[in-house]
Amino acid sequence: MAGVQVRAIYEFTGEPGTAELSIVPGEILTLTRQNVGDGWWEGCNQAGQTGLFPAAYVEEINGSQPPSMPPPPLPDAYTELGAAEQDSWGVSAEQQHNSQQAYEAQDYWDDEWDDDSEGGGTQQANPNAYSNMGMVQKSGSAGDVSSLGKFDSKGTVGKKNFNRFTSFVKTGVESYILGTLKVSVPEQEKVYIHEIDEQITWTPISRPYTCQVASPKKESKLKGLKSFIAYQLTPTINNIQVSRRYKHFDWLHERLEEKFSLIPIPPLPDKQISGRYEEQFIEHRRMQLQAFVNSMCRHPILSQCAVWEHFMTCTDEKMWKAGKRKAEKDELVGANYFFSLQAPEAPLDLPTVEYETEKCSKFIHGMDGAVKNLMATAVDQTKKHQGLYKREYQRIGQAFLSLGQVFDLDVATGNRRSLSDAVKKTGETYNEIGKLYEEQPKLDWEPLGDTLHIYKGILASFPDILAIHKGALQKRKECEKLTSDHKMEPTQLSDITRRTDVVSYALLAEINHFHSERAIDFQEAMKSYLTEQIQFYQKIVGELQTALSKYTY
Amino acid sequence: MAGVQVRAIYEFTGEPGTAELSIVPGEILTLTRQNVGDGWWEGCNQAGQTGLFPAAYVEEINGSQPPSMPPPPLPDAYTELGAAEQDSWGVSAEQQHNSQQAYEAQDYWDDEWDDDSEGGGTQQANPNAYSNMGMVQKSGSAGDVSSLGKFDSKGTVGKKNFNRFTSFVKTGVESYILGTLKVSVPEQEKVYIHEIDEQITWTPISRPYTCQVASPKKESKLKGLKSFIAYQLTPTINNIQVSRRYKHFDWLHERLEEKFSLIPIPPLPDKQISGRYEEQFIEHRRMQLQAFVNSMCRHPILSQCAVWEHFMTCTDEKMWKAGKRKAEKDELVGANYFFSLQAPEAPLDLPTVEYETEKCSKFIHGMDGAVKNLMATAVDQTKKHQGLYKREYQRIGQAFLSLGQVFDLDVATGNRRSLSDAVKKTGETYNEIGKLYEEQPKLDWEPLGDTLHIYKGILASFPDILAIHKGALQKRKECEKLTSDHKMEPTQLSDITRRTDVVSYALLAEINHFHSERAIDFQEAMKSYLTEQIQFYQKIVGELQTALSKYTY
Repeated sequence: MAGVQVRAIYEFTGEPGTAELSIVPGEILTLTRQNVGDGWWEGCNQAGQTGLFPAAYVEEINGSQPPSMPPPPLPDAYTELGAAEQDSWGVSAEQQHNSQQAYEAQDYWDDEWDDDSEGGGTQQANPNAYSNMGMVQKSGSAGDVSSLGKFDSKGTVGKKNFNRFTSFVKTGVESYILGTLKVSVPEQEKVYIHEIDEQITWTPISRPYTCQVASPKKESKLKGLKSFIAYQLTPTINNIQVSRRYKHFDWLHERLEEKFSLIPIPPLPDKQISGRYEEQFIEHRRMQLQAFVNSMCRHPILSQCAVWEHFMTCTDEKMWKAGKRKAEKDELVGANYFFSLQAPEAPLDLPTVEYETEKCSKFIHGMDGAVKNLMATAVDQTKKHQGLYKREYQRIGQAFLSLGQVFDLDVATGNRRSLSDAVKKTGETYNEIGKLYEEQPKLDWEPLGDTLHIYKGILASFPDILAIHKGALQKRKECEKLTSDHKMEPTQLSDITRRTDVVSYALLAEINHFHSERAIDFQEAMKSYLTEQIQFYQKIVGELQTALSKYTY
Repeated sequence: MAGVQVRAIYEFTGEPGTAELSIVPGEILTLTRQNVGDGWWEGCNQAGQTGLFPAAYVEEINGSQPPSMPPPPLPDAYTELGAAEQDSWGVSAEQQHNSQQAYEAQDYWDDEWDDDSEGGGTQQANPNAYSNMGMVQKSGSAGDVSSLGKFDSKGTVGKKNFNRFTSFVKTGVESYILGTLKVSVPEQEKVYIHEIDEQITWTPISRPYTCQVASPKKESKLKGLKSFIAYQLTPTINNIQVSRRYKHFDWLHERLEEKFSLIPIPPLPDKQISGRYEEQFIEHRRMQLQAFVNSMCRHPILSQCAVWEHFMTCTDEKMWKAGKRKAEKDELVGANYFFSLQAPEAPLDLPTVEYETEKCSKFIHGMDGAVKNLMATAVDQTKKHQGLYKREYQRIGQAFLSLGQVFDLDVATGNRRSLSDAVKKTGETYNEIGKLYEEQPKLDWEPLGDTLHIYKGILASFPDILAIHKGALQKRKECEKLTSDHKMEPTQLSDITRRTDVVSYALLAEINHFHSERAIDFQEAMKSYLTEQIQFYQKIVGELQTALSKYTY
């Protein structure tokens, strides 16, 4: 990843005397190191200065990392319909299938690429520590390999989205709209969309459940050569615990992104190379995985899908492999999945659909900016709590402590003795408050950051989804024109319109779900953040009251 | 004052993009401007960069500002006793008297030098705005003219103390010890020292009183050409209000320093050229004057002295002038004042006296460092509250506000509507907390700083006082040697020993008073500081609880 160029989007002033590098918005930097940890990257500015800056303060420059896929050939229907959209449409279902076969060649249960494997024996001493990252890229898997920090600005609205299968998984949408794809869907795979009280919704979850992510354990295999962290999942469906590693989550995530091209998949915690075995990191990742699992369990479609159920419930290794292969061979992915969608018969009003999706697009764009800003604030405040604020309180503490120590020189009794003790206690109290500041972000900014991380991922997926939908509407309009020019049969147009409506129904149901979920999630996140903030300042009040009580005269 | 060199004693990192100048300890700077206000000075470093830094972070380099007095002539007794102490002993009582006559030539009721006069008409437009400062220096008055900030590091232990009449007022001490001075003291001027339960004390105040400093008023004379601030003093002795200006306090302070060479006089608030008519400044100066007055009222000797009583009670202009002239002609000042001291007959044990005064010296030195450090912390925290911390909270506020505004784009009802209002309210709350931070130092750090200011002045006076005492002991030892060498009569030595004991009794009584007062003052100051801090964090808790209550779902 080194050599990649990024553009500063926020101003950052490096602290003098540290390795930090000041950056100004618009400045272009060349990355020299991304595995710095804690959301920091190292880069070199155009004046040749090298230093650290928050990863969240820069964005990757589009095109600096072109996808490694070959350019797509023209689809069958392409020449017929004009060359306007070559970029967003284009790879055949066959190609997509080839890409799936590439996966099958690897055994994911034991494969070499292993996000948790570096801590064990020999690999730790491997001088080529980034070889694993290289494999990730070669395998063409998802996962935002360049974002190693807790918080980052990657996968953001308006940029090319590397978190998903780029545009290739979405190919076939045109074929679906035009009716050249034919896929039969078994009953249990069908997904229903309803319109009740002018609200278009997915079929609500009939038996809601939750799934706990608990007890991360460090385990090892190959006589300790490889070690990894295993998280214990217990769904309330059956209350049977299963053990899953990050790489299993990662595999699951790829399957979900492949299958659901109209549903934003909640993101996993970012991959991280360094500090993976630190207790705090493991606990934080557990919380982030819990947030991902919660988001999955509450989604009407995702929570019911076979690959997720397999992931959440399979306890037998043989069964696991079988289920894995089955999921990887699933035909109902990408555009094929659209055949699963069972939408109301009522035709949709095109202007209304366009108005609603445009409104959603604006909302997504605005929320993306606000989330990014709040996330940068969370990173910044976390850093300040652990550095600046802690130091400030400890300086105050030291100043009082010194005064109390001087008062000690006066070997007095009574109120003079008690004053010197009280002043020293005041000094210690401010030192303690400094420590409270250091500990606090774990309780407020970090959990809020986890919610923001989930939404950052979801918001980043929306533009692609909206683009697919827009492409479908565009195709429909082109076909309407062809029909009015008598170049297409009205019955064919009618089918195209129906299929476009199915895509619109699905999108509107998903937008609806998104809005009700984000209201619930932010309600909870904000309440919890404020509750922790209140407790924090109450703790300070308590400490100060104890200090005050030492002044007994 | 420009051109004076100072040495940085603390590190200060200037904020980029401002006029601030970073300084490192030990660095030498040349002052270019001291009337910047708010504790800031402007200077030029050796790299030629000019900028602002906190006055409290630097110290004047000894000797960079030599006193403008002529060198003292040899005293009468000098040749007899060896030339060892020319520097700390030396100006005759006659010279001192001349210096008093110089004062009489000016009429202080209406004199030109007027700390409050610059705000009026023509003088404000005077391009030579520093002419008043020049006059202060020429008049040889006290007042630390170079310290224009609220807090400063001047007058500190170990440096030449310009706050007092340098060593000249102390001249005559040698003559007193040697018995060459003869002054008769009327009964009402006598001051008694007691030894009760091994404690040497001044006669306690028989009728304690207080005096309120209230209602600073802007007044003017000469048809508005001169304006000034008048403070209203009401002592509980008679409950009659008198009106006094800063220059009257300043005149009083000079008389007190002249008279009491063994008692540290509490300092006045620093002189300030700019911003003198701002309401906040005036109110703060009132509080500082109140602190001075409190310290005066609680001192067994100062609270009873004639010039203070005149200052506090005189209401008639004619009487005022008469009292003023009388005070300026007071014979019982400096060494002459020692004749007022009525100490116990019991001779003091020299080693005990030396041990006690040495202990005091160490305490004073240590406390001076601690007070200076705490004062720098107070300045620094005040600045951070009004800048950095306020900005940080307002940034958090802005981040939440932006999120709430995005949520507003979703024109929803029910919990979605209420969430967007709640998130906006959270943003406003953090903005409010930012304002609380800005306002807070007025309530905690500033009053604590006022107590520190009083003690800074007192601590700065102690080394000179201890030096006078040490000189007396030294003189006694020399006389003991002369006697054992049969060069002095034993009866003469006995008188010298007695007079030295009187000086020691007075010093030990004053040390005792100092310790009991500083215990009371710091007890009160710390309690009040902590109480305000507690209320501050409770206010934050209250604000956050209100914000939390808006999340109603």
